[in-house]
Amino acid sequence: MRHSILSGDTAAGQNFTRSGTATDGATRGYERWSTRKLTQFLGKPKITISLWDGYCVRPDQGESLGTVHIRNRHALNQLLLKGDVGFGDQFSVGGIDVEGKLADVLLELYVARNRSESSLKSIGEFLHKRGPQRNTLEGSRDHIHHHYDIGNDFYRLWLDQEMQYTCAYFPERGMTLEAAQQAKLDHVCRKLQLKAGDRVAEAGCGWGSLARHMAINYGAQVTAWNISHEQIEFAKERARVEGFDKQVRYVEDDYRTISGEYDVFVSVGMLEHVGRQNYLELGRVVDRCLAPAGRALIHTIGRNQPKLMNAWIEKRIFPGAYPPTLNEMMDILEPYYFSVLDVENLRLHYARTLEHWLARYDEAQDEVIEMFDQDFSRAWRLYLAGSVAAFLAGSLQLFQVLFVREQNNLIPWSRLHQYRS
Amino acid sequence: MRHSILSGDTAAGQNFTRSGTATDGATRGYERWSTRKLTQFLGKPKITISLWDGYCVRPDQGESLGTVHIRNRHALNQLLLKGDVGFGDQFSVGGIDVEGKLADVLLELYVARNRSESSLKSIGEFLHKRGPQRNTLEGSRDHIHHHYDIGNDFYRLWLDQEMQYTCAYFPERGMTLEAAQQAKLDHVCRKLQLKAGDRVAEAGCGWGSLARHMAINYGAQVTAWNISHEQIEFAKERARVEGFDKQVRYVEDDYRTISGEYDVFVSVGMLEHVGRQNYLELGRVVDRCLAPAGRALIHTIGRNQPKLMNAWIEKRIFPGAYPPTLNEMMDILEPYYFSVLDVENLRLHYARTLEHWLARYDEAQDEVIEMFDQDFSRAWRLYLAGSVAAFLAGSLQLFQVLFVREQNNLIPWSRLHQYRS
Repeated sequence: MRHSILSGDTAAGQNFTRSGTATDGATRGYERWSTRKLTQFLGKPKITISLWDGYCVRPDQGESLGTVHIRNRHALNQLLLKGDVGFGDQFSVGGIDVEGKLADVLLELYVARNRSESSLKSIGEFLHKRGPQRNTLEGSRDHIHHHYDIGNDFYRLWLDQEMQYTCAYFPERGMTLEAAQQAKLDHVCRKLQLKAGDRVAEAGCGWGSLARHMAINYGAQVTAWNISHEQIEFAKERARVEGFDKQVRYVEDDYRTISGEYDVFVSVGMLEHVGRQNYLELGRVVDRCLAPAGRALIHTIGRNQPKLMNAWIEKRIFPGAYPPTLNEMMDILEPYYFSVLDVENLRLHYARTLEHWLARYDEAQDEVIEMFDQDFSRAWRLYLAGSVAAFLAGSLQLFQVLFVREQNNLIPWSRLHQYRS
Repeated sequence: MRHSILSGDTAAGQNFTRSGTATDGATRGYERWSTRKLTQFLGKPKITISLWDGYCVRPDQGESLGTVHIRNRHALNQLLLKGDVGFGDQFSVGGIDVEGKLADVLLELYVARNRSESSLKSIGEFLHKRGPQRNTLEGSRDHIHHHYDIGNDFYRLWLDQEMQYTCAYFPERGMTLEAAQQAKLDHVCRKLQLKAGDRVAEAGCGWGSLARHMAINYGAQVTAWNISHEQIEFAKERARVEGFDKQVRYVEDDYRTISGEYDVFVSVGMLEHVGRQNYLELGRVVDRCLAPAGRALIHTIGRNQPKLMNAWIEKRIFPGAYPPTLNEMMDILEPYYFSVLDVENLRLHYARTLEHWLARYDEAQDEVIEMFDQDFSRAWRLYLAGSVAAFLAGSLQLFQVLFVREQNNLIPWSRLHQYRS
């Protein structure tokens, strides 16, 4: 499958060369002034910004941790006009390059910007006011197709062997990605006190690894929903080949169609795609299907304060994505009197997970370019490295929220069972 | 100290005898009709309601779990007009009695009412629309004086030896109250990763047991605030006698006056008295005083949905009290970009704690009557038993919320350390 990351407006009409030569001539006074202003708006990161003719803005004090090379006039204009979207798009097509470890440079940019009170971001948000995209049944399919149906072969290059595209759990720091993804599955199952015979509804099952784990290792009966055609086909085929298709039913449909009664409701990495306007409905789905003594867990990327997803990531990588605050998540639970038992924030575990993915991704760079193209390869590299940085900077959180019905007193007496081997 | 629970309006002009004889004569048709309607509004609990002339409304089906005796016309009128306040006040003065285990009967009443869609409560709330009391600096002192300054001798009758008037932690079900209160102290200290030399600010320190524990067992330097004069005097004297007054400074002042920088901010059982309108200011206090790598924990009674404190308890026992939802608690944390690391709900532990308190309280009944009077004794019995019921019914929660600054990456890699002995 060929898939260019830049099918939209900005890829057209570019007037620069990839290598970033000085075809644009010398920088002009207002361009140098804008670049100096830019570093102020960005909160004076310890990063050098270098223009195409060699003009540099260096940090006021302290060592520079890396250099952002702006290769031509168009790239600078796009960055100044479109903020994160301009940066992302120009990085993808080579109008912007980063010298130094990409994740470290982005982390410094995030941290400086978070520190800064007036930032390019806020100006950018003012100029390009936007709301989150709405996820209707139809819209959700388009959005999910955009991201998850770009090819199992692509994800296989850099995910773990179980194809888990969500935060792993590293109870010991030095664990391999494979071990940490297994540990995540068990951590979720233990929180849910999963036992043989439990009926499980999984909303947004990815390539099916959690459902498989629950069936094979805990003896659960799982029905797992997903609207990504490529993922669900992969999951169904694996269940058939491995012979656990009696215990797991994979359904290619939207979580809003879940029916039946279940002892466990679980959703790992779907809420980001649900959209705030659908939280009440998601709560209604859980309320409709959870048995009186049932347990439910939602695992999601989140925020400490409400904020839209990074504009470039939402535009190019994850259309319709929105990471909620805990406050916003309560819109799912409060109307139905659900009782929160346990919240855990695994932010640093996601940074670690992404570092593993990024390392594997970098190793597979040639194959990615072969599969897609250079722009796609660079865009996804920026997305993975930027995500490492966002979790390390505290801009993104990873919440696991365990909840039950208000009147359910068959709840664990402590969380010790989560930590027994 | 003499202290009558009913210093207000309803204690005056009662026209019944404590023993509940039939001085009011036979019940009238509308009184019997109102009683039948009442049981419907209450969600048809499996409880018998008996009037002063022997007229009974029994459960439609199933065994009756106990009987509420309404001893006279005035008590019935007060119950019908004032809902929970009428019930509490009339129970206190003996116009209402309960046959059967008090906490069990109240639990059934709570559960039935939670089930019921149209309840006496909502009618009562409509009739007696109220907002939470505002806790100004002056008002807070009055409210806290009302509850906490009624005498250390009184609380000593039924609290544990450390005088902890907050939820204990029972990692093993059969623990004594003393052991469970010690376990709570350690659970809090472990969540906070408390270590020798840490500077701790404690907001609302009760009789000072947590500050003492942190100093003696962890080597921390604690400053502990409380506006209850009786409690802080007790704490200061104990620190002097036991010789830990170099490590703990008890301050008789409001949490809003906290200054300095601290490695740990902790507040156990104060937020209930802070009042929603002051959450932003509480957050500002924490933001002002927490070191960059500091840890903070708030332990509070809470709710799954916003709801005022039971009207009678707020009127007679805890003026100004309000148990927040997690959503509402985020008003403390979100404005300052605090990052929630861990939420634990210890609801059943508070029910167990209260059962211990109630058993000790019942044993000390004669002393309570001697210290105060019969009305006071009955009112506090209702409050303790009602609280057992509220936590068992899921009407009240107990949240421990651990949080840090957004950019603090020196956070624990897992929660395993909370469960190592």
